[in-house]
Amino acid sequence: MSDTGGILISFEGSEGSGKSTQIARLAKHLELAGREVLRTREPGGTALGEQIRHLLKHADAGFGMCPEAELLLFAASRAQLVREVILPALDAGKVILCDRFLDSTTVYQGVARQLSEDPVQAINGFAVGSAMPHLTIVVDVPAEVGMERIQKRASDLPDRMEQENIEFYQRVRQGYLLLADQMPERFFVVDGTLDIDSVGELIWAEINEHFFA
Amino acid sequence: MSDTGGILISFEGSEGSGKSTQIARLAKHLELAGREVLRTREPGGTALGEQIRHLLKHADAGFGMCPEAELLLFAASRAQLVREVILPALDAGKVILCDRFLDSTTVYQGVARQLSEDPVQAINGFAVGSAMPHLTIVVDVPAEVGMERIQKRASDLPDRMEQENIEFYQRVRQGYLLLADQMPERFFVVDGTLDIDSVGELIWAEINEHFFA
Repeated sequence: MSDTGGILISFEGSEGSGKSTQIARLAKHLELAGREVLRTREPGGTALGEQIRHLLKHADAGFGMCPEAELLLFAASRAQLVREVILPALDAGKVILCDRFLDSTTVYQGVARQLSEDPVQAINGFAVGSAMPHLTIVVDVPAEVGMERIQKRASDLPDRMEQENIEFYQRVRQGYLLLADQMPERFFVVDGTLDIDSVGELIWAEINEHFFA
Repeated sequence: MSDTGGILISFEGSEGSGKSTQIARLAKHLELAGREVLRTREPGGTALGEQIRHLLKHADAGFGMCPEAELLLFAASRAQLVREVILPALDAGKVILCDRFLDSTTVYQGVARQLSEDPVQAINGFAVGSAMPHLTIVVDVPAEVGMERIQKRASDLPDRMEQENIEFYQRVRQGYLLLADQMPERFFVVDGTLDIDSVGELIWAEINEHFFA
């Protein structure tokens, strides 16, 4: 919890893990408990960030986007989100629920695309500044489960990020589990293959123990 | 010169310094001398980079773009330019003339916006990788001269980058001169207040001495 009572909680997990559903549930719970909640997402969450999100999802220049440019675009969106939205909301004592945050970059660009660790950490630190999450919830599902859920969604053609192969998502999952092992005080991993209510109850129990016990 | 004979030359200087004019002249000279020339610019130079350029020049979200996001967008455009355009052109033995490159970030975002030096250098290194300029030409004019030239241009309203005040451009100029002092083997400073022909002749003499002597 920050000095002024604001709380920053990030949700992480593969596509199809069910984190958006859980963010909506948690927001409702927190509001019923009398907390002011701000939901946001990455990339995006600001006017600039949503334009960057569009570039990331739909850019296809024939040559393709290089992993370095991809990482830097995510970081640019994040830098703006922190300064325009997150820091003011923390100052106002809100609970911020962020759909993806800096660990997505570590895992997707760092681990899964195999960019070297030092610059990834330097860029992450530059982008988030003092806005480190108080708690990061990983909604964990096997890569196959996430892929299957994505394919069932009634939607348009899969976007650029969803076209990765199964090995990529296996590396993503392992990346999250590794981070959770390295930073157990910040991370909470929940089994996303359980039914929606059970996942929600596990998250709510963790939130209460972590912040309100 | 790279192993395969490719040459990367960057041009730097304030807005209104006359570097675009000099790039065009140098390109013509080099072509007459039998070299294959590739001209490019930053931000931009690729399909992705031109979209980023548009964001940088016209984004105005009310809140304004934070300096960290600005720097990361420049770096993203540069990372793509290096891998999609510059490295292949170096491999093909071309002379690449780049209108702004990594030193613009050091000076505009680092020195003039006063972001701290270490992350700026780390991000610059991550973006350019092995593609360091063999020569960087600073077309140097006092801030007042650059501003006056910009205002005389028959153009639309000044864009976001051109609306900075005179003190900002004075810091930019000092930043370039400082870099040139620190790295005399890579930098060549030419007096941009001289007439166009004289500036062009000084640059051509330097190119010949540096690469073809």
